[in-house]
Amino acid sequence: MSELNALDQYLQQSQPNHLELLKRLLRIPSVSADPAYKDGVRQAAIAVLDTLATAGLETELIETDGPPLVFAQSPPVPGKPVALVYGHYDVQPPDPLGLWKTPPFEPSERNGNLYARGATDDKGQMLTHVLSAAAWKAVEQQLPMQVKFLIEGEEEVGSEQFEAFLARPEAAEKLACDVVVISDSGQYAPGQPAITYGLRGIAYFELHFSGPKQDLHSGSFGGAVNNPAIALSKFLASILDEDGRIQLPGFYDSVKPLEQSERTLWNELRFDDEQFAQQLGVSALLGEKGYSTLERRWARPTFDIHGLWSGYQGEGGKTIIPAKASAKISFRLVPDQSPQEVALQLQQFVDSHTPAGVRVEVIDLHGGPGVVVDPHSPFIAAAQSSIQTAFGTAPVLIREGGSIPIVAAMKDKLEADVLLLGWGLDDDGAHSPNEKFKIADFYRGIRASTHLWHHLAEVAG
Amino acid sequence: MSELNALDQYLQQSQPNHLELLKRLLRIPSVSADPAYKDGVRQAAIAVLDTLATAGLETELIETDGPPLVFAQSPPVPGKPVALVYGHYDVQPPDPLGLWKTPPFEPSERNGNLYARGATDDKGQMLTHVLSAAAWKAVEQQLPMQVKFLIEGEEEVGSEQFEAFLARPEAAEKLACDVVVISDSGQYAPGQPAITYGLRGIAYFELHFSGPKQDLHSGSFGGAVNNPAIALSKFLASILDEDGRIQLPGFYDSVKPLEQSERTLWNELRFDDEQFAQQLGVSALLGEKGYSTLERRWARPTFDIHGLWSGYQGEGGKTIIPAKASAKISFRLVPDQSPQEVALQLQQFVDSHTPAGVRVEVIDLHGGPGVVVDPHSPFIAAAQSSIQTAFGTAPVLIREGGSIPIVAAMKDKLEADVLLLGWGLDDDGAHSPNEKFKIADFYRGIRASTHLWHHLAEVAG
Repeated sequence: MSELNALDQYLQQSQPNHLELLKRLLRIPSVSADPAYKDGVRQAAIAVLDTLATAGLETELIETDGPPLVFAQSPPVPGKPVALVYGHYDVQPPDPLGLWKTPPFEPSERNGNLYARGATDDKGQMLTHVLSAAAWKAVEQQLPMQVKFLIEGEEEVGSEQFEAFLARPEAAEKLACDVVVISDSGQYAPGQPAITYGLRGIAYFELHFSGPKQDLHSGSFGGAVNNPAIALSKFLASILDEDGRIQLPGFYDSVKPLEQSERTLWNELRFDDEQFAQQLGVSALLGEKGYSTLERRWARPTFDIHGLWSGYQGEGGKTIIPAKASAKISFRLVPDQSPQEVALQLQQFVDSHTPAGVRVEVIDLHGGPGVVVDPHSPFIAAAQSSIQTAFGTAPVLIREGGSIPIVAAMKDKLEADVLLLGWGLDDDGAHSPNEKFKIADFYRGIRASTHLWHHLAEVAG
Repeated sequence: MSELNALDQYLQQSQPNHLELLKRLLRIPSVSADPAYKDGVRQAAIAVLDTLATAGLETELIETDGPPLVFAQSPPVPGKPVALVYGHYDVQPPDPLGLWKTPPFEPSERNGNLYARGATDDKGQMLTHVLSAAAWKAVEQQLPMQVKFLIEGEEEVGSEQFEAFLARPEAAEKLACDVVVISDSGQYAPGQPAITYGLRGIAYFELHFSGPKQDLHSGSFGGAVNNPAIALSKFLASILDEDGRIQLPGFYDSVKPLEQSERTLWNELRFDDEQFAQQLGVSALLGEKGYSTLERRWARPTFDIHGLWSGYQGEGGKTIIPAKASAKISFRLVPDQSPQEVALQLQQFVDSHTPAGVRVEVIDLHGGPGVVVDPHSPFIAAAQSSIQTAFGTAPVLIREGGSIPIVAAMKDKLEADVLLLGWGLDDDGAHSPNEKFKIADFYRGIRASTHLWHHLAEVAG
């Protein structure tokens, strides 16, 4: 373990320099959603490329129809596995600007945190892996295994260019790896690091219920026609039964029951329902009967309405039967459920539930399957050791309710395992004003990553 | 009947002059909803006052905190009943201006119609009664009974000032009458005049369902909390049962069953469901089980949603659990139902149907009771004769699904009967671009009104 000792010592000495490198990256306003920041987005790509080159990696800027992809790799190490670090250099818009205590693109240290847009999502977390590679190069002259980097610039707006690149024939070879490493999520709780081994999928739709060809006076016509807003309400109400179970035909056919070992593990996390409800400002939690809150959030499919609109939304009372009523809805999926199947099930449900006098249009907006990896894999074991050393606590194994479609795409295309190692905290404000990253967690992340290459290299390639 | 013959002859000769008077009034842009038209509103009041004074009536401009009320009266005729004509000189906004074929305040004759904002609603219809009084004065020197006029300037925005005036102690005496005459509605069909003897009431509410204190990420939180948009949908869906019956507790307690004579009468109108559905652009009509379309529209209470809003309504898919979901809803009421009682019933229903984890706020926006008058009254008989002569067809007795709260207020305050005599047509576009009034119907209305004073005078006062 002497090489790890030397590396740890190097990391300790390099902390001021690492923080400076992060600040430099955070000063670049790389907002991918807003064309006004186009220069900043490119500048951030170049900065990441430079840092990777300085770390001694072979680098390449892959041009696309959007922001470039930053690719880098260390030399192959025969007999050792190959890792691919995925991350992104673009950030969320900083709005609403008025709510920031210090400017979003002027990194500011307060109470052990570094405040700036992108601090945790994902510049800070992504940089931990870049700097760990730099540490190996500085101390040991080379990494103990081949590590590749693919850092994109459109994650916050849908990863369109990276997805297109993934579909290209050369992508499979260039990105070939045994495990994809991603740090773009969070710890389970402050001081309790986690490894996320599952993500939910999603199937997202827009519904349009149409009735009369124009709005009608509800006095003269009320009682004559089916009101599309009533028809929509009745339809949406019929999707969930009294127990919170989704009523689409065949919806649960491919849903595997939870493993008892997972339930036991999560039960040991002693999730506090009452505190959670208080945090969210609700008097009670609610969801599918028979499952704990964590089970419902992480590993059970759910239905949600994201938007509703119909008729008159202004001041006072307008007396119309609206011609149209619409909703945005989605189903979160668990692994083995396919968004395409759910789309068919929804259409079937619509067909059998469309009442007299309305027409229903279903628009399939987007979807992606869920991901789950084997929590008993040697990669997970390697990550556990690294994190335990760096954070002083064994990480818990959790799943996440959210969906990262690109993760499923990479897993499928590259036939690789996935390690989701989140260094962030729930209150980091990833998409909110005053985004932050705990500076100690930044250093711990670099150390965990540095140790990770050592432990992964011990796994048979 | 020689006096009616002389009057008819006078009316015949006066047609060009009457049309000119209407055009003059229509040129005044008296839009009550828009402060920019304040001068026009006052100018219209003065023009109506002038026309009434020219007709030889005693006139008075009653100032209010808004547009003035125009009051006029002919001398009392002992032993004869007293009528009060109610109408309004204000008009709807002309928007959208681009859809008018000729400017809204430049009356234009085409195909036997006069096009202008206010042509039918209500300048044209109201003027028929003013001009009938003028005819009596010109031909017979005096009206055969006392006729009063109360023409207001805020009908299109809620009649606030007139309602306030009605509540004043002197109003009962000033407006004292046996029957209120209103022409602000329509014929049953082209060539089929109607007397409306019933209007529905209304109870209008806004509902706000609140869940978490802010929008939540539906990936991380989906399955944990009650989604307010789902809770709202389920609540709205529960208001109507499968037969279209309203489920508020006690809602039907004060609803009288329809009289067999009414059902027979309306059945004889041979309302064409299929043609109606086609007109509205729906594949089928729908409403409370066991009632015909006319019965449902005119004489049964109904529930409608007028507006829905929650969460994200923009392009694409945003994955949130919205913090709030809202709706505008109303119940149309039949006579004997009170809006206040319905408000209590709704609150009760909310209290017993609020699910876990959401808060519900009910805002009572406005309400007014329905009105129904005895279709066998001598006033109705007098109107029937007059209309039969003027239109060449016996009027049908109908009810209207809409609500005119001020009518119920006058009926209650003045303890008078009400005659709703509509000269308009369904396609007059009362609140739409290219509003029109059929010129022949304008003349027929004046003649019917002229005869009405004769026949009403024969009813014991």
